[in-house]
Amino acid sequence: MIAPGFTGGLLDRSDALRHDAEAFAAAASDFRAKLLKLDGYDPEIDAEGRLAWTSIAERADDAELVLLGLENGRPHFAAYTPGMGPPRGRPQRLFAMLDHLAPGEAATYAAARSVLDWHARHQFCANCGTQTALFRAGWGRTCPNCHAEHFPRVDPVVIMIAEHDGRALLGRQPAFPPGRYSALAGFLEPGESIEEAVAREIMEEAGVRVTNVRYVASQPWPFPSSLMIACVGQAEDDAITLDTNELEDAIWVSRDDVRKVLANEPGPFLPPPPYAIANTLLTEWAAD
Amino acid sequence: MIAPGFTGGLLDRSDALRHDAEAFAAAASDFRAKLLKLDGYDPEIDAEGRLAWTSIAERADDAELVLLGLENGRPHFAAYTPGMGPPRGRPQRLFAMLDHLAPGEAATYAAARSVLDWHARHQFCANCGTQTALFRAGWGRTCPNCHAEHFPRVDPVVIMIAEHDGRALLGRQPAFPPGRYSALAGFLEPGESIEEAVAREIMEEAGVRVTNVRYVASQPWPFPSSLMIACVGQAEDDAITLDTNELEDAIWVSRDDVRKVLANEPGPFLPPPPYAIANTLLTEWAAD
Repeated sequence: MIAPGFTGGLLDRSDALRHDAEAFAAAASDFRAKLLKLDGYDPEIDAEGRLAWTSIAERADDAELVLLGLENGRPHFAAYTPGMGPPRGRPQRLFAMLDHLAPGEAATYAAARSVLDWHARHQFCANCGTQTALFRAGWGRTCPNCHAEHFPRVDPVVIMIAEHDGRALLGRQPAFPPGRYSALAGFLEPGESIEEAVAREIMEEAGVRVTNVRYVASQPWPFPSSLMIACVGQAEDDAITLDTNELEDAIWVSRDDVRKVLANEPGPFLPPPPYAIANTLLTEWAAD
Repeated sequence: MIAPGFTGGLLDRSDALRHDAEAFAAAASDFRAKLLKLDGYDPEIDAEGRLAWTSIAERADDAELVLLGLENGRPHFAAYTPGMGPPRGRPQRLFAMLDHLAPGEAATYAAARSVLDWHARHQFCANCGTQTALFRAGWGRTCPNCHAEHFPRVDPVVIMIAEHDGRALLGRQPAFPPGRYSALAGFLEPGESIEEAVAREIMEEAGVRVTNVRYVASQPWPFPSSLMIACVGQAEDDAITLDTNELEDAIWVSRDDVRKVLANEPGPFLPPPPYAIANTLLTEWAAD
């Protein structure tokens, strides 16, 4: 059973509540209802890696509630505060926390962060420019002028290794921590399948042609709201032509090398962190 | 080799050209450059199911060019005309055409349609409400006020069958043509994986719990801009609890039934059309 980071959430999203104003109002005034505690967009976590919650009675006067879901019938909310700007950068403090979040908790946090960030960046109607209002329990915004309805974006990203003669192709972006190599990745575009996006991205970034693309696993990635789709493709040969605008370096690594670095033993590179699906992808590939 | 509808495009998207103003200007004044002929948002096709093209010299004075890609170095464009509203409904004429489009041609059309439709619905900055301008060869819009960059949406949709005791679960939406049943489907949300979205949607729409979700194939779906992700999940039992807001009916069908109706023989339902990935999914499942 593959369990990538940011998966395994335990809340029932309860789509029905989003469409039922009366039921939503009851949930929002339920004395048991919980509000996710956030410091800006960062979670607060306890020693066991669990998210901190408070009562929704503690919310700011102008806060707008986003229904994260139900747990045993008990409503769980996050609060969007009008004027709250989008998150800036990815604080190291948050990334250190992600290593400690308990399974399932990171999934709840990911949903909350993505939706709040989306509200912060989507206050206006893309169709007519008018200020929009939150609706559907926080899972959409609607325009009072042209009546367009807008829903949170999820941007599919393909993330993949090319495989050749028992070795995997990894790349290094300039912004990576020293020594790290990871799977190549890029946004999927309108008018292409997952398999086509995988082939296009590996060709663009490394000049390697792949066929027989195989899906491995997926995870949400809340920076701001990607769906990471992890795949393996078969490379026709191992000659690399690097796109230096995207990658600083690309290397072919053996299964032995991958097993070693995932076990924290010295090897030719440092692997991506456990909460990133590139780590899951390499773990699966090395176990084959 | 699985080849779902709207895949197999032959144009090289040439991402490098989008980032190089000089090269883009050269492509846009290349005398060999071709412009996709459209009637509104509908394609014009010849007797062999190929898309019709004209010279970019034929474009309207105010047209903005979207680079679809290169074929043997020859630039292919679509034109966005400011003021062009989004498409309305899905004309039957278009759906009849889709059956006749040659492989690869539907993929080129899908990319063009999705991007033009996106421009039509995204003239304003979601962040600040200011009118935006096309950039990156038509693959983005940028805001002159807050400098936010916006990129075409691709909305991931899971489409799936639950499997139980050799039978597959299919559903019927009220808007379907008479007799048609198809795979269940729904938008993937922020904070969930493909596998989690599949399980949630089948539970919401049919009350069936699935595990061991297996990815089968994907396709772009340009109405307006979805990525259809086709999967099969194992149902724990076959008791159906229908969400009548979503589905009119749901049934369990055997492999024999599916093979029959895909071969145009009489059976208990009419299948989805060949250009829809639900058709590919049923074909794969029936062949297992």
